[in-house]
Amino acid sequence: MRKYAIIGVGHVGATIAYTLVCKGIADELILIDTNTAKARAEQLDLQDAQARLDSRTIIKINDYHELADTDILFITSGNIHALDHASGNRWAEFDYTKEIVQAIAPKVKASGFNGVAIDTMNPCDAITHYFQRATGLSRAQVFGTGTFLDTARMQKVVAEVFDCDPKNISGYVYGEHGESQFTAWSTVQVNGVPITDLVDSHHLDLDALEAEARHGGWAVHSGKGYTSFAIATCAVKLSEAVFANARLACPVSAYSETFDTYVGQPAIIGKNGVESVTTLALTADETAKFQNSANTIIEKFHAFDDALTQPQAPLQKLA
Amino acid sequence: MRKYAIIGVGHVGATIAYTLVCKGIADELILIDTNTAKARAEQLDLQDAQARLDSRTIIKINDYHELADTDILFITSGNIHALDHASGNRWAEFDYTKEIVQAIAPKVKASGFNGVAIDTMNPCDAITHYFQRATGLSRAQVFGTGTFLDTARMQKVVAEVFDCDPKNISGYVYGEHGESQFTAWSTVQVNGVPITDLVDSHHLDLDALEAEARHGGWAVHSGKGYTSFAIATCAVKLSEAVFANARLACPVSAYSETFDTYVGQPAIIGKNGVESVTTLALTADETAKFQNSANTIIEKFHAFDDALTQPQAPLQKLA
Amino acid sequence: MRKYAIIGVGHVGATIAYTLVCKGIADELILIDTNTAKARAEQLDLQDAQARLDSRTIIKINDYHELADTDILFITSGNIHALDHASGNRWAEFDYTKEIVQAIAPKVKASGFNGVAIDTMNPCDAITHYFQRATGLSRAQVFGTGTFLDTARMQKVVAEVFDCDPKNISGYVYGEHGESQFTAWSTVQVNGVPITDLVDSHHLDLDALEAEARHGGWAVHSGKGYTSFAIATCAVKLSEAVFANARLACPVSAYSETFDTYVGQPAIIGKNGVESVTTLALTADETAKFQNSANTIIEKFHAFDDALTQPQAPLQKLA
Amino acid sequence: MRKYAIIGVGHVGATIAYTLVCKGIADELILIDTNTAKARAEQLDLQDAQARLDSRTIIKINDYHELADTDILFITSGNIHALDHASGNRWAEFDYTKEIVQAIAPKVKASGFNGVAIDTMNPCDAITHYFQRATGLSRAQVFGTGTFLDTARMQKVVAEVFDCDPKNISGYVYGEHGESQFTAWSTVQVNGVPITDLVDSHHLDLDALEAEARHGGWAVHSGKGYTSFAIATCAVKLSEAVFANARLACPVSAYSETFDTYVGQPAIIGKNGVESVTTLALTADETAKFQNSANTIIEKFHAFDDALTQPQAPLQKLA
Repeated sequence: MRKYAIIGVGHVGATIAYTLVCKGIADELILIDTNTAKARAEQLDLQDAQARLDSRTIIKINDYHELADTDILFITSGNIHALDHASGNRWAEFDYTKEIVQAIAPKVKASGFNGVAIDTMNPCDAITHYFQRATGLSRAQVFGTGTFLDTARMQKVVAEVFDCDPKNISGYVYGEHGESQFTAWSTVQVNGVPITDLVDSHHLDLDALEAEARHGGWAVHSGKGYTSFAIATCAVKLSEAVFANARLACPVSAYSETFDTYVGQPAIIGKNGVESVTTLALTADETAKFQNSANTIIEKFHAFDDALTQPQAPLQKLA
Repeated sequence: MRKYAIIGVGHVGATIAYTLVCKGIADELILIDTNTAKARAEQLDLQDAQARLDSRTIIKINDYHELADTDILFITSGNIHALDHASGNRWAEFDYTKEIVQAIAPKVKASGFNGVAIDTMNPCDAITHYFQRATGLSRAQVFGTGTFLDTARMQKVVAEVFDCDPKNISGYVYGEHGESQFTAWSTVQVNGVPITDLVDSHHLDLDALEAEARHGGWAVHSGKGYTSFAIATCAVKLSEAVFANARLACPVSAYSETFDTYVGQPAIIGKNGVESVTTLALTADETAKFQNSANTIIEKFHAFDDALTQPQAPLQKLA
Repeated sequence: MRKYAIIGVGHVGATIAYTLVCKGIADELILIDTNTAKARAEQLDLQDAQARLDSRTIIKINDYHELADTDILFITSGNIHALDHASGNRWAEFDYTKEIVQAIAPKVKASGFNGVAIDTMNPCDAITHYFQRATGLSRAQVFGTGTFLDTARMQKVVAEVFDCDPKNISGYVYGEHGESQFTAWSTVQVNGVPITDLVDSHHLDLDALEAEARHGGWAVHSGKGYTSFAIATCAVKLSEAVFANARLACPVSAYSETFDTYVGQPAIIGKNGVESVTTLALTADETAKFQNSANTIIEKFHAFDDALTQPQAPLQKLA
Repeated sequence: MRKYAIIGVGHVGATIAYTLVCKGIADELILIDTNTAKARAEQLDLQDAQARLDSRTIIKINDYHELADTDILFITSGNIHALDHASGNRWAEFDYTKEIVQAIAPKVKASGFNGVAIDTMNPCDAITHYFQRATGLSRAQVFGTGTFLDTARMQKVVAEVFDCDPKNISGYVYGEHGESQFTAWSTVQVNGVPITDLVDSHHLDLDALEAEARHGGWAVHSGKGYTSFAIATCAVKLSEAVFANARLACPVSAYSETFDTYVGQPAIIGKNGVESVTTLALTADETAKFQNSANTIIEKFHAFDDALTQPQAPLQKLA
């Protein structure tokens, strides 16, 4: 049985829930939110849909005890209104979301949860790191959607230039799910051709494409006030790779031994969560950007003293 | 190719769009909204998801010309804020939504659209009727989700009592997608047993169950501020029955020759939209309720003079 | 994680496997067949498809130890060539398939399997009974597809007369998955109307319709040499109801306390397998046919002495 | 509406049909086979499944007139028994399948079919070429599954070595869907790393891997007597790219201006069929192999005089 839980049923959490239900992916689904009326409303809306769906999902709300045998836990809480629209700064959420994680993590730990936790909260890398430490779950078991979404946006942006399916574009966005991220163009191929070979012939401005991908979330946010469909699709796809032990290559926010932080990088996703991280031969420039982005995450993470002064669970080696 | 269009990308329209994209149902999808930034944001959010989906849907926005060869058109505009929460009165929306339909219908007509239009706007029955008249589309081609959703809620409510799958509950909610609707209990079976045979043994309060189903939308609305998942699921399911010419039995808001109004009743949905309506042997009490509910729709519809005084397209016989 | 196993990868078993893989239903799948080359070939063919599917399923072969934590086990072995085409007699398979079950059951028992077993082997009712006894699994845990397929055929046959979706036809075929089965017409509705009310107006010959449904398998068999798609679809749907604990109403071959045999009848399918059987108010004629069909199963079952003289596991009450 | 037709309902054609029906991809499906009883049996078996599926597909048989407005036509006829098992030689089928195409093509032409035709018959490249000429359909409209399947097998074989998802392996098998095919290792990446960089560290024998991929079909064939699931999955995926105008990069048997023959190579698949072919910078060795494989196809194709001496439709430029 595939048992899922979602903590936080705002736009992202609710859309994840709908995806799991309408595609018949989840057999059981636990929705948890401090706003009980909201959790109940989402439960009802999803249950109202069940008579019209071929599959069935048992849906329960607000019971942390259910996490004991939950396989996949999505952490999606967060105050969208805390976002600093002007600056495009996902860090503006950290103070607020950190408090949420401080409230959630002990309950997750106490529940006996021992599945895989996937974080979509922003700032994604730091929150994922914080949640992993606070719960004492292994670094394999906890990861963030990170640049999995940014990479999808890069694929879309490049695909538009070449008028093809985004799936024809391979390659990765690395680093922070935020401003310091970068597209490692040395890894990007268009229909099997290195994009660096196409710059001249197609008059490509890679910096402009990178910027468009990086700001893709803001483009959505400015029009609808939040983002939901793409991030939910990404989160669900990662969870399916865990259930199937697919060992699928995906850029996610995973713990880096090199940088001692969670950061967006290609990883292999399987039944244990992050089975391994993949080291590609980046260019010197890309390597510097990667280091810089990791530093940005670490610096901001350290600025939150309380995040570090509370007793830490012993760090565990990546499985 | 399955070509869809959605006019109005609020919560309902956007969720329909997401369902069509994430399940690979639509090959092409046109999103239309007077709020261009919103339409563009939904387009972007859905396109961002495409690299993570196995299927692909071409998504365009705000071009009525695309309706000329569109197969299915969802009408989902509406101002959720106009709802009168206190009274639970879907009619409160009519003034507002009528204006929307007045703006939309001529454009739909001018586009040359000749597919099937499915309305989810409230008050559903009256708006569907108005839209059908204003566009000159046939009564077969235009129908509303009507009591398809209310019936799903009835199935859920009854299924909870009997601890079974909502799909085990057959039968129909008739009438207005609103307060005057009623569950025709004579049509309802639980696992193949007429529910009327189970009233005593299970101490059922059918009136209470009916009320719970009828107010299901408000229960959702009060917690999340709108409803989206169940109504979108219903709308999509109806559209699939049209594409496949499934001739699937569904209670929808269809034109009634008897009452000369659109009203919720079982109908056969196929490639032409409403292929026929199904006449069941209701009890005298149910028949009276049906008449009453139809009267309620007609009365309110007539109250809107401008809806009637504008030149009407010649009425066409049900195909 | 959804873990499935299939014993017997002939046409039915292989089609079940393909359905589970191509729809992303199974996370892990064990194929078992005495013909190792066949099991290996099906594994390879399914694995070759994986690069083209969005989902992933881990596929292993011929290891009974894997059954220890398997959730759903399909029993699909059987020698299609043993069928007596001339008589349309599914019992002709019993001698052969009984030997197969005699070989399989101890291995299943020894594996520690404790999930739900769904039998598609013919004669379905007797083999299901035999397998349940021989493995010592509970009567809830073991059931057969039985008349779930025959009911689907009845729905199709009736739907063709009324030119509508087979899903518009409710009601059940009862009894043996074989010649003594019957359609309980008192349970059948067409678009919500009792079919018995439509006999005159539509000049229906219910006996002819029943015969057409009963012989549906032979119609397929005579053209392609076996049946596969419908039976696989039925088997997979039942398994999904178990995983989701859907408590879905389905006619299956379930143990009847009344008749002390497995026999096709409506039941509620949930996480324990058969959660309960549903007793409908059949007509006197239908009740007699049901008794007769159960007697047919029992009589033939008893004819196989060795099936009864071997030590039996203690019978367990239906959960 | 998505309208499909399949000519030839042997194992491949029937499995394609089942995939289209069980996943709800096709709205209408035409099955054509000279063995009417077989076509009828497959139709019945698929129709028997419909009451258990959420979607519906209208299924008809043996009417070439239906091709006039068919969107996708699969050509899957072929005599599996003509295969020369000992030699692993797909060409052994040509004499037989050519006759089939000679019989089919005029009927397809006469039907007014103007959609996209996808050939799975072997020898795939030559038969595809023959069918394109004989029908007068454009070279864009007609293509073969070709090395789309061989590439999937290569991905599987390499993925097993690296214990990861086959979808993590990018790159292409080029050339004949037959013995002269080759894996263009310069195009292959494992989790984003060029496989040529991993040969030493992982002690890879690329020739052995290539051979395993090339003979993947025979491995399946030797165990089950035919191949079905992977080829059907590939064929359906290509058709979905056409419906959605996905412009998806896929290695298929497409017409090559360079070689003046159909041959396996990466192409962009969209609404017109083959929208363009993709030219990658192969190594000198790979280029030689590609030329050689194309020559093999041409040589064998020319050997069939009657294939060339019949009046040809005027060749059309690739759209």
